[in-house]
Amino acid sequence: MLKETTTKRVRLLVSCKDRAGIVSAISTFLYNHGANIVQSDQYSTDPIGGMFFMRIEFDLPPKKSSFEKLKEEFIEIAENFYLDWKMSLANQKKKMAIFVSKEDHCLMELLWKWKAGELNVDIPLVISNHTNNQQAVEAYGIPYHYIPVTKDTKQQSEQKAINLIKEANIDFSVLARYMQILSPTFVQAFPHQIINIHHSFLPAFIGANPYAKAFERGVKLIGATAHYVTNDLDEGPIIEQDVLRANHRYSTEQLRVAGRNVERITLARAVQWHINDQVIVYGNKTVVFS
Amino acid sequence: MLKETTTKRVRLLVSCKDRAGIVSAISTFLYNHGANIVQSDQYSTDPIGGMFFMRIEFDLPPKKSSFEKLKEEFIEIAENFYLDWKMSLANQKKKMAIFVSKEDHCLMELLWKWKAGELNVDIPLVISNHTNNQQAVEAYGIPYHYIPVTKDTKQQSEQKAINLIKEANIDFSVLARYMQILSPTFVQAFPHQIINIHHSFLPAFIGANPYAKAFERGVKLIGATAHYVTNDLDEGPIIEQDVLRANHRYSTEQLRVAGRNVERITLARAVQWHINDQVIVYGNKTVVFS
Amino acid sequence: MLKETTTKRVRLLVSCKDRAGIVSAISTFLYNHGANIVQSDQYSTDPIGGMFFMRIEFDLPPKKSSFEKLKEEFIEIAENFYLDWKMSLANQKKKMAIFVSKEDHCLMELLWKWKAGELNVDIPLVISNHTNNQQAVEAYGIPYHYIPVTKDTKQQSEQKAINLIKEANIDFSVLARYMQILSPTFVQAFPHQIINIHHSFLPAFIGANPYAKAFERGVKLIGATAHYVTNDLDEGPIIEQDVLRANHRYSTEQLRVAGRNVERITLARAVQWHINDQVIVYGNKTVVFS
Amino acid sequence: MLKETTTKRVRLLVSCKDRAGIVSAISTFLYNHGANIVQSDQYSTDPIGGMFFMRIEFDLPPKKSSFEKLKEEFIEIAENFYLDWKMSLANQKKKMAIFVSKEDHCLMELLWKWKAGELNVDIPLVISNHTNNQQAVEAYGIPYHYIPVTKDTKQQSEQKAINLIKEANIDFSVLARYMQILSPTFVQAFPHQIINIHHSFLPAFIGANPYAKAFERGVKLIGATAHYVTNDLDEGPIIEQDVLRANHRYSTEQLRVAGRNVERITLARAVQWHINDQVIVYGNKTVVFS
Repeated sequence: MLKETTTKRVRLLVSCKDRAGIVSAISTFLYNHGANIVQSDQYSTDPIGGMFFMRIEFDLPPKKSSFEKLKEEFIEIAENFYLDWKMSLANQKKKMAIFVSKEDHCLMELLWKWKAGELNVDIPLVISNHTNNQQAVEAYGIPYHYIPVTKDTKQQSEQKAINLIKEANIDFSVLARYMQILSPTFVQAFPHQIINIHHSFLPAFIGANPYAKAFERGVKLIGATAHYVTNDLDEGPIIEQDVLRANHRYSTEQLRVAGRNVERITLARAVQWHINDQVIVYGNKTVVFS
Repeated sequence: MLKETTTKRVRLLVSCKDRAGIVSAISTFLYNHGANIVQSDQYSTDPIGGMFFMRIEFDLPPKKSSFEKLKEEFIEIAENFYLDWKMSLANQKKKMAIFVSKEDHCLMELLWKWKAGELNVDIPLVISNHTNNQQAVEAYGIPYHYIPVTKDTKQQSEQKAINLIKEANIDFSVLARYMQILSPTFVQAFPHQIINIHHSFLPAFIGANPYAKAFERGVKLIGATAHYVTNDLDEGPIIEQDVLRANHRYSTEQLRVAGRNVERITLARAVQWHINDQVIVYGNKTVVFS
Repeated sequence: MLKETTTKRVRLLVSCKDRAGIVSAISTFLYNHGANIVQSDQYSTDPIGGMFFMRIEFDLPPKKSSFEKLKEEFIEIAENFYLDWKMSLANQKKKMAIFVSKEDHCLMELLWKWKAGELNVDIPLVISNHTNNQQAVEAYGIPYHYIPVTKDTKQQSEQKAINLIKEANIDFSVLARYMQILSPTFVQAFPHQIINIHHSFLPAFIGANPYAKAFERGVKLIGATAHYVTNDLDEGPIIEQDVLRANHRYSTEQLRVAGRNVERITLARAVQWHINDQVIVYGNKTVVFS
Repeated sequence: MLKETTTKRVRLLVSCKDRAGIVSAISTFLYNHGANIVQSDQYSTDPIGGMFFMRIEFDLPPKKSSFEKLKEEFIEIAENFYLDWKMSLANQKKKMAIFVSKEDHCLMELLWKWKAGELNVDIPLVISNHTNNQQAVEAYGIPYHYIPVTKDTKQQSEQKAINLIKEANIDFSVLARYMQILSPTFVQAFPHQIINIHHSFLPAFIGANPYAKAFERGVKLIGATAHYVTNDLDEGPIIEQDVLRANHRYSTEQLRVAGRNVERITLARAVQWHINDQVIVYGNKTVVFS
């Protein structure tokens, strides 16, 4: 009964064709259910015939089951306005899986921020095709699944990973410098549920060895891109990008080392937004309410 | 009758004590008046007992006088919720005065952006205590008022400026590197209507010669701060700040030259937000819906 | 005789195969000629078998013709070490031509910085395929040459421009949003003497309409690239790049407007470095001693 | 004898009154000793009567004891030009002590970068007035010394720390969010050997609770400053500074959490430069050859 004495913070994500009355209908619905809107963002690609996106955070009074009831009753509005929508309790932690290969900087960034309380998730498992990060991950009390990948075993290995994800009820996965390309089967099983960090400022330097390519081209900034994984390599919806200044003194290896800093920061920001339901995918782009 | 055929974009700024139902009441009011919300931002310092701030952009259907009627009828809601509010037509240009001394970089940035159509204002006059920028300003077709300031004439000079501002129905003034300290009389006549650019990252290096102080201290970044002018020198509500990397090679003079770039960009951004009704002052701070 | 009473600041740029003794030989040569080194930068791609690059600024005592004598006598060292080199007086202004089409932001940035004394060049002429910037340029006292370009007249038009450049002894040209692709004939006539600003973070969005492409791809940063023009479109040696944060709210047009800020700043920085002999091209890259 | 087959990378730092012939004398000396200069930076506050600073990296041929001999013979030049100087082998790791209190983000950043091979140091010990980071530090194989500090025991505690530093032959210490003010005795024992990270953009928000002060002032950027510790609190020579964008939505606590990112990055950069002998202190400023 203790739970009932505190307010419940709820997040509502909405996308639909824009038309008059949506904000009014939703905010009145919430008001009539005793909700207090504490944050609201919206965006319309075009008020006439465009798409409408909204994110609302609101507090529900501490009555029993008010959230479930609210969710159920929202369906009517959703149907009237043909809404795509998602409603979730802010304090209900998502389950995040991390995939990693040898390089540990993105992994450690996520684990450190998680332990510091900055990432409001559970991390039931880490999957890797290498063993070198096992000890560090287990020191955080997180199970580490070593699933080697070879040409011949790729399909079986992926199936193992899929099984692990499904058994653990994973909400989304992060490829924290996981140097294997996922098969269409894998990707389609988890639409907009896999976040990758690519070590370049996309669409520059798609594919392998972006730092070598950046060195060749003589760019003066290097970047990183966090995006949802689709079947087009490095072409999925971009969540976040950032850059770092470089110059002629940087070798490919030094670009790689410097780039770690922008990779881990960019990825952590994207993961944070995903966790907080701040990202809506539409077409091959994202709306990020940050 | 032509005017009636296009929709009217309206901006509404609201601040009040936070309580449930505000968003619902306002959005329903707008819906009932045929308005279509195209952009909405809100912020609450604390859902319980805090302050609530909202900015809404909406489109009114192209009926005659619908804006005035709406504004009048909004008073009832405003009184119910004890709102501070402001409603304005987006296409109705504000009148901006610019004050400048010798250095022209902030002045030229504003004039160039204005001419390029980036700043949706009228500029009825420029006031200066020097003559060196007269030709450049008049080339833009803007009247230039030379009002020299000496210790003895300061009061009279200010009165002249005040008269000019009032006669021209100026909405707000920009001190684009105007190197005179305005008297309390002047400042109080135009609350939150005067934007200054200070050439440091406030609160560092308050007062005169910030670049000399920055050089002395050996800072590795220099900054600029755009803020509303109050009677406490360089202590008014900050609208925008930005910085630029420096190093040991920079002399005071070189910091001053490099600093121009960050000054003009920071000021232009703040002025842009003010023009678009994106800034709400509360206490000695600002909420910027950007 | 007045000239002889002040020291002469000289800049020396050197590139060659790296081998021991270069710095020693050059600095001893300078010392023996009474020069005082005030700034020196060097870079080696690899101490063993790599390329060596150096930029030295030094002061010569105020004796008559010491610079010419020094230059002549330096040839011996240059031959010993197989140096590519360039020696110039810092106070001898380069002659810069500006090419522009309709958009004026890069043009105005350069003109303003030139007038403010930030760019130590002469600007004998501006060439444009449009007339809309004529008045603004002439207000700065700079001749404006309107050379329209059509498919049929392209070759003749280019020849006119080449003649103007040669007659005016132009040292380098800046394409300040000049929306014509120069022919190989033109480009080869002025190797590493033409600086272009491309409105994207190269190699992303090569070619036309980069802002439309950036909008399509949903990038979270937009950029600009200043580079030397070669015959491979947008593939020449990069001098400088910078970026600006964007988000889902930006339309293509808004990206274009926001992008102006990063374009003009990036171009001005590259031009500044070129003027100050801070750039050495090697292969398809640049060494920038900044 | 294996050691003799590889070249030795040496770093030379020099400061002195500027006068003609320094670069020539030093580079000729190095050439005569078979050294190959691979990197050289210099800076003069003023060629006439100013201070001269230089950093040279050079490779020595793989002969036995060539470094010690070179160092000894350099004394003559140093005396001729009244040089302050330091010559060290690049591959000889400095010994770094870390002081930390409760917050672990700066500590973990340094440890992670050290383990990743990015920081070329030994870390013989971590000292803390709390125990909460003991396990994490020991997991890296580094001894953790818990030295509680109270008003009464402050002097004894400091003496313990001093003893530990001296016994371990520590070259420099890093205060990685160590929330105790060191006594003048301590500070004077290690001049320019203690690096602190202050969680503000100095000189703004000197002293305690900078994030609370930043919140109060309503700044739009928050910063961090890495500096050498002197007896004037937060007034020592600044090595590096950086900032992060904030806005009205950030509470003091959120500024504190966001600020961690800029603190750890700024500190790591300063520590990196110190390790690589890239920093020269003069007066209350630093020359950073980066």
